[in-house]
Amino acid sequence: MNINKIQVVFVRHGESEWNKNNRFTGWVDIDLSNRGHLEAKQAGQLLKKNNFIFTYGYTSVLKRAIHTLWIILDQLNQAWLPIKKSWKLNERHYGALQGLNKDEAIKKYGYETIQKWRRNFKDIPPGRVKNKNLITEIDDIHYNIMGIHNLPNGESLELTANRVIPYWKNVIIPDINNNNHTIIIVTHGNSIRAMIKFLNCLSETEISKVEVPTGTPLIYEFNRDFQPIKHYYLS
Amino acid sequence: MNINKIQVVFVRHGESEWNKNNRFTGWVDIDLSNRGHLEAKQAGQLLKKNNFIFTYGYTSVLKRAIHTLWIILDQLNQAWLPIKKSWKLNERHYGALQGLNKDEAIKKYGYETIQKWRRNFKDIPPGRVKNKNLITEIDDIHYNIMGIHNLPNGESLELTANRVIPYWKNVIIPDINNNNHTIIIVTHGNSIRAMIKFLNCLSETEISKVEVPTGTPLIYEFNRDFQPIKHYYLS
Repeated sequence: MNINKIQVVFVRHGESEWNKNNRFTGWVDIDLSNRGHLEAKQAGQLLKKNNFIFTYGYTSVLKRAIHTLWIILDQLNQAWLPIKKSWKLNERHYGALQGLNKDEAIKKYGYETIQKWRRNFKDIPPGRVKNKNLITEIDDIHYNIMGIHNLPNGESLELTANRVIPYWKNVIIPDINNNNHTIIIVTHGNSIRAMIKFLNCLSETEISKVEVPTGTPLIYEFNRDFQPIKHYYLS
Repeated sequence: MNINKIQVVFVRHGESEWNKNNRFTGWVDIDLSNRGHLEAKQAGQLLKKNNFIFTYGYTSVLKRAIHTLWIILDQLNQAWLPIKKSWKLNERHYGALQGLNKDEAIKKYGYETIQKWRRNFKDIPPGRVKNKNLITEIDDIHYNIMGIHNLPNGESLELTANRVIPYWKNVIIPDINNNNHTIIIVTHGNSIRAMIKFLNCLSETEISKVEVPTGTPLIYEFNRDFQPIKHYYLS
């Protein structure tokens, strides 16, 4: 492989309507807020100013991430970019918490329990009750069309990592090795945290303190063995 | 293959800024007009009303087609749809005519010549002068990133068909055979005319009279041998 450098840009989607309202979102398919649109546009302008030209893009199947990517690509005049969308890059599935405001959740389950579910690497929140679909969730029929039949229902960060990291290893790294040395991955707070823990070899305690801001390009540079050489937020 | 029916929906992109001004566009990467946005939205609503759920989508690398597809997918709540984008579905490359208003072109080349280039199956317009890029054309560097190094420069409808039909046979039909029985192809006036000529076995004279309206879903139903059973515009 004859390369100068491998650059991978992670972007957490812009603010969504539910980020704004402080509600657990998970797999509920909530769109960007107006501010989220603006954040995405600014991320695109920043990438353009820094001369990024991508050769491949990745995103989840959730519209807040997809729309963020579309807005960024329009800023770069790269709407033509080939994109892979996968549920494996989805946000952590928050089970029964999905749809609850954070105050409501604390009232229902208690502060300590919520903190445990939010911050502990291995704690799994309870599943959402089946057939009581939140109206804005992508219908299971759509996941069936995507060929996904065993959907998660409540995930820890560890379970999220257990699908994100294999996608990185089995899909993204082979694409990079196939001459795509500058790629963009627009995804979610916890799918990016799972990647950061993996790439930077963080402990469970260390990752519990990491927050990823919305709409802010996080650049990783790698050597050809996919060891990170450096990483930084673009600003 | 166990199927009820194969449905392929062709949509010509909504009105572009240059359709509005009656300019030859070809590969110049002009965006949708406001009316084009609305046409795309209406096409999406119509498909939704008729219960279309797609399993795969295709478009060119030109933003007027890509944006039309994005707008349609948002109406269907199918932003997650896997999409392939290919220059092989691009509009006919109009060579030196690109950028000219139709009146200017007639003044420069004469009415008969322009009509010949526009309507004859095999007539090729002169190439555009290299290095005199129209500022809005996707830069050649972008086509290089896509791995395309021998770009056309002036195409007849026949030359357009010579890349569109192989893409249909070698990419789209195998995807359909891989259980994608309802697909959407958002592309351009002449790439769709090339498909119509092929699918309906039209003569060169017959296809010369066929116009494809912008933003109007054209439905083809096929048997398992990919013979068209029927086709109609959705309205």
